[in-house]
Amino acid sequence: MMTEEDDHPGGEFDLIARYFTPLAGSGAFQLADDAACLNAVSDGKRQVISTDTIVENVHFLPDDPPDLIARKALRVNISDSAAMGARPVSYLLNLTLPPQRGKNFLAGFSEGLAADQKVYDLALIGGDTTRTDGPLVISVTMIGEVPEAHLLKRGGARPGDAIWVTGSIGNAWLGLQALTGKIDQLDDGFAARYRCPEPRPHVIPPGVATSCLDISDGLIQDAGHIAMQSQVVMALNAADIPLPEKLPPALQQKYFEALVTGGDDYELLFTAPETATATIFEASQRAAVRITRIGTVKPGPAATQLLDETGAPYQLTRRGWQHF
Amino acid sequence: MMTEEDDHPGGEFDLIARYFTPLAGSGAFQLADDAACLNAVSDGKRQVISTDTIVENVHFLPDDPPDLIARKALRVNISDSAAMGARPVSYLLNLTLPPQRGKNFLAGFSEGLAADQKVYDLALIGGDTTRTDGPLVISVTMIGEVPEAHLLKRGGARPGDAIWVTGSIGNAWLGLQALTGKIDQLDDGFAARYRCPEPRPHVIPPGVATSCLDISDGLIQDAGHIAMQSQVVMALNAADIPLPEKLPPALQQKYFEALVTGGDDYELLFTAPETATATIFEASQRAAVRITRIGTVKPGPAATQLLDETGAPYQLTRRGWQHF
Repeated sequence: MMTEEDDHPGGEFDLIARYFTPLAGSGAFQLADDAACLNAVSDGKRQVISTDTIVENVHFLPDDPPDLIARKALRVNISDSAAMGARPVSYLLNLTLPPQRGKNFLAGFSEGLAADQKVYDLALIGGDTTRTDGPLVISVTMIGEVPEAHLLKRGGARPGDAIWVTGSIGNAWLGLQALTGKIDQLDDGFAARYRCPEPRPHVIPPGVATSCLDISDGLIQDAGHIAMQSQVVMALNAADIPLPEKLPPALQQKYFEALVTGGDDYELLFTAPETATATIFEASQRAAVRITRIGTVKPGPAATQLLDETGAPYQLTRRGWQHF
Repeated sequence: MMTEEDDHPGGEFDLIARYFTPLAGSGAFQLADDAACLNAVSDGKRQVISTDTIVENVHFLPDDPPDLIARKALRVNISDSAAMGARPVSYLLNLTLPPQRGKNFLAGFSEGLAADQKVYDLALIGGDTTRTDGPLVISVTMIGEVPEAHLLKRGGARPGDAIWVTGSIGNAWLGLQALTGKIDQLDDGFAARYRCPEPRPHVIPPGVATSCLDISDGLIQDAGHIAMQSQVVMALNAADIPLPEKLPPALQQKYFEALVTGGDDYELLFTAPETATATIFEASQRAAVRITRIGTVKPGPAATQLLDETGAPYQLTRRGWQHF
């Protein structure tokens, strides 16, 4: 997916629609999905390809441990494969290194890659290393494979489908607040999640989801992406959204809006027919990953609705909300 | 190919061998070729994938026109596909933008992409746009396809093969000298070639070359890559190396060493059996691209020899030479 920071003049969608969508070819899904499809099919499996860049001071902090920077670069891309229903298989690495990142950095960085290659059964197949006088920039391009019938896209949600989310929402936002000293006395696990996300490949049972994406721009905004691509209403129940258990209830309430609009969670948001509920619960237990129903797809012009317990609209004030 | 700037402590080969080769998977050719192969085969065609990053102040100048920056980013990657004997098909784009690169830049940049998509019959299939407070960084990942039997690698040169090169050598080095004011009164064409290289897809006739790469590190150093991967001696005749016709003979002589060791030429260096000579001449005429025989592959421990007209070693003093 073509994404960029919120602070860009004109915004992400404007930029992509105006300059890049006209250049998109077949298999690119108009650059609106998490990955593109390659033409080649091998053993009935479709190859998907996606790429994400992480930049020092934007996506990670200068003093983050090198092995965790490497793992974050891999994991945000693993998450894109997972969002397409694909198994990540191999990757290319573009490293743009400032002068002060020398052998110690590279030793730690390559250890992080090696560790996650084992965890996710991945291989490095190519890349490029260049120098810069600016910040560290890392791009990873991930190739995954998925049986053609199980490919997931953003455009398949149908009215009546249930809306599900893996894990809990807001961990990365809390981690960034902890690491930058903006909120004190948070559990250490949040910082760890910001530095090293937990992507969810192999969690959604094959063949049940009608649409899917990974939450990188915040739950509310990303729900809007499914709404737009599927031309449906994503009706979310505020009270059902799984918030981090290690955050005290009072803080869950206080920071609710930030949690559901904060980015970098890399959980999967997906839709599935009601009939898939038992299969999803079984998959959740098998993977030991919480999967929570948070709403229902409704007919209507593309929109995301956040509802309180009475079914009335829940008012959000944060800027992320304005996109929808 | 994993490459990096010469100024890195430890050098390119050391860095790759030490930190990244141990991570390489199948199809990666130990990260020693211009591209990797994907598993999938479609209609008997193998998909190859490569990625190259260009960085402001390193690979292009801050005031280079945006459309030419875009075309350079594409073309260095098209060249990698060509070096594998492949037809470039589609690409992903990672743009890391400093604040001063706004809509004007993006308009020019996307025009450059559109222009070269037409020239080379390419489509954009994905990417990522991020912000940085540092220099502009652009990574392109190119997917190409090649009939399995016509895949070219660096490791296939055999003693007795002729050594060929497309175009002429040193254009980009001369362009950089012109643009940075280090040599006066050079033909404008050299600056244009530095800013917008001429990759050579579709020039080498399919099925004749035994090894191939594109010249990005300088002719002498890149000949050494074939020597090493093929375990042969690359014996080059200094007098046969095609130098830019628009450079006066006195300057050709004066700058000879810089021309044959300067990088960024993106010509193809390849080997082929003597029996392919007529086919290569025909291909040269059909493509209207000069292809010149510059030496012969010989048996022996991996080495590059540059020979004068008497067959004696030609002494080079530049640093690029020390690698071999």
